[in-house]
Amino acid sequence: MDLPLSPLAPARFPDIPPIPGLELAGAATGLKKDGQRDLALFALAPGSAIAGVLTRSHCPSAPVVWCRRHLPQGRVRAIVVNAGNANAFTGQAGDDVVGQTAQTAAEILTCRPEEVFLASTGVIGDPLPPDAISRRLPGLASGLRPDAWQDVADAIRTTDTFAKGAVRVAQIGGVPVTLAGIAKGSGMIAPDMATMLSFVVTDADLPEEVLTPLLRRATDRTFNCITVDSDTSTSDTLLLCATRQARHPAADRPTSPLLGDFRRQLDSLLQDLALQVVRDGEGAERLIAITVSGATSRQAARRVGLSVANSPLVKTAIAGGDANWGRIVMAVGKAGERADRDRLAIDIGGVAVARSGLQVPGYEEAPVAAHIRGRNVSIGIDLGVGRGRATVWTCDLTHRYIAINADYRS
Amino acid sequence: MDLPLSPLAPARFPDIPPIPGLELAGAATGLKKDGQRDLALFALAPGSAIAGVLTRSHCPSAPVVWCRRHLPQGRVRAIVVNAGNANAFTGQAGDDVVGQTAQTAAEILTCRPEEVFLASTGVIGDPLPPDAISRRLPGLASGLRPDAWQDVADAIRTTDTFAKGAVRVAQIGGVPVTLAGIAKGSGMIAPDMATMLSFVVTDADLPEEVLTPLLRRATDRTFNCITVDSDTSTSDTLLLCATRQARHPAADRPTSPLLGDFRRQLDSLLQDLALQVVRDGEGAERLIAITVSGATSRQAARRVGLSVANSPLVKTAIAGGDANWGRIVMAVGKAGERADRDRLAIDIGGVAVARSGLQVPGYEEAPVAAHIRGRNVSIGIDLGVGRGRATVWTCDLTHRYIAINADYRS
Repeated sequence: MDLPLSPLAPARFPDIPPIPGLELAGAATGLKKDGQRDLALFALAPGSAIAGVLTRSHCPSAPVVWCRRHLPQGRVRAIVVNAGNANAFTGQAGDDVVGQTAQTAAEILTCRPEEVFLASTGVIGDPLPPDAISRRLPGLASGLRPDAWQDVADAIRTTDTFAKGAVRVAQIGGVPVTLAGIAKGSGMIAPDMATMLSFVVTDADLPEEVLTPLLRRATDRTFNCITVDSDTSTSDTLLLCATRQARHPAADRPTSPLLGDFRRQLDSLLQDLALQVVRDGEGAERLIAITVSGATSRQAARRVGLSVANSPLVKTAIAGGDANWGRIVMAVGKAGERADRDRLAIDIGGVAVARSGLQVPGYEEAPVAAHIRGRNVSIGIDLGVGRGRATVWTCDLTHRYIAINADYRS
Repeated sequence: MDLPLSPLAPARFPDIPPIPGLELAGAATGLKKDGQRDLALFALAPGSAIAGVLTRSHCPSAPVVWCRRHLPQGRVRAIVVNAGNANAFTGQAGDDVVGQTAQTAAEILTCRPEEVFLASTGVIGDPLPPDAISRRLPGLASGLRPDAWQDVADAIRTTDTFAKGAVRVAQIGGVPVTLAGIAKGSGMIAPDMATMLSFVVTDADLPEEVLTPLLRRATDRTFNCITVDSDTSTSDTLLLCATRQARHPAADRPTSPLLGDFRRQLDSLLQDLALQVVRDGEGAERLIAITVSGATSRQAARRVGLSVANSPLVKTAIAGGDANWGRIVMAVGKAGERADRDRLAIDIGGVAVARSGLQVPGYEEAPVAAHIRGRNVSIGIDLGVGRGRATVWTCDLTHRYIAINADYRS
């Protein structure tokens, strides 16, 4: 399937500087039938730390089961990611692939298999031979370089129409550290987690006990606030690694004042990657930001926002350029959170549409419809029952989503 | 919008005999702009009883608020239903429309306004003048007849491509009673309730205290097991009325052995109507039955079934005639109910696809793909962790769903 570039794609992949202690490789090894890049390797210096957030699926892929088991020890030397086959619902054969891949990577990098983390994306349920990935690793490893970010970003794509990367610089006690990451979507995108893979590496000198809470907090505000189609994959994986090569003052608690800028830059990086995933949502023609305020809590605000963001009727109305705000009322009403028809306020593109349970007097649809026909749609919903606030992001539901998903595998 | 007839439509509207104590009228009164029938009136004999199930939306329509208030007294003389405007999110103006409509209907039928029940379907948020419906009632009432079922079924349609009706005969102590009903879909269809309107009338001599538990039980197995698009409307309304004109032995408890056949026929009637709603789901080309067994409870089985039924990726795969059963695994995994990858079994069209956590050895896709390309798709899922079982029904997600919903109002 040859997909046209999303109209919401950024102009280009960012320039990412080398990160001390990290080498990368991404290559076409024949796992995908179309000759595209399909296998990625991250090689990290001894002593590197790792934190991760994984899908909550009750039917997780074999790599997710492996990561769940080995993340708590917090040490990483390699990440191996393949696209084309999710290695999910493949029984013992799937576990064998994971074990052999980790073993081979450990031999190449002279580390323990438990320091190798894996992720796979693609079709579910297609068994792989045990050496399907491991036999491709030596060739891949021979191409490791510090600057191959776009190659690895390409190698983890499935129906993504562009490679997704982002970079930030943070100060820790006056010492600059780099954070860089890649992600892929583009369907099965919903919390928790968004259906996607994302890998972030920093040279900051931070242990697992600090990385994990920082990652969870940032994920809660970014990847867990996006949805493309409400479907959650068997394979969602977000890994944050620290090579610990930077020489900054020690920060041994996640709440350390030294980490203020690092926290902000991590949030910003993950939001950038999360929004790139939405911008490349299957068939997306519009990026939609939904801000819910006046809810009983932040969680309630997010649930109402996701109810709107996941409503096929809201998403198709926006795809049609239609200011059908009644469907927003419907989606607020079905969310199950406290709401009051007679206090509800709705704004679209900054224009007041509804106040106190009915359409604003003198409401004119034309400017709202014009806003909806643009590339970036903003919806504001105030429930008027509390102080909870959250923003969620989604895309519209278009004919192209159907075309992509009715024809993807066949 | 001129929609082609659903390929899943029944051959014709059923013949429904007159029900003693009931007269009907359905006419075109100008509420819809296209000259189609848009207003329906049910007139019931004095002494008639009513039970109802309403949307759980926190932003319900004005008619739903009215019905919630007056259902507990259990007495009915009229039901007024309009299509074209949902009278939802219309503030005090919406309540005024409801009050004036009930008042006028009560004057025409010489009853109390609280014995008049209302439902509205159509666009949300468009205010109506207070007399929008009431001034049309005298003309409509002049056309009341015992046999106008198809007229009322037509008058409540929105994007429905066919009128939905069903009829059953039940024996109560050897005396036949009739149950007849109509329904409309076709978008915003999800439990609880399915987004729809349905009105059922029987001549059985049953009071509200018996009707309500029978209706709730039957709804739980029928309308609450269907979904078209996961969206729940502001206006879902299912009303069951008894004119009490039949002369059968008294049954004053819902569990009375006298009511065994009546319960079965009510279940059968509601299932017939519910499946007609799915068969006319917006853009539907296939009716999909998903039976989940081996769950920890019936509720858990239904939740897993609905997770599969609401998955855009499952529904688009089926629209594409693609035996992509990995997406079923994904949807089982995300449902949040107990499941075990290594005990999961999946059948499609009666063919074993997956057992014990992986694809069945020697699995051949051709017969499964042929089944999926038919009009009726059956999916069996055994979770292997308990004895709970439920069946849910949905339709596929096609290009036509997008076309209908991106263009409906504009």
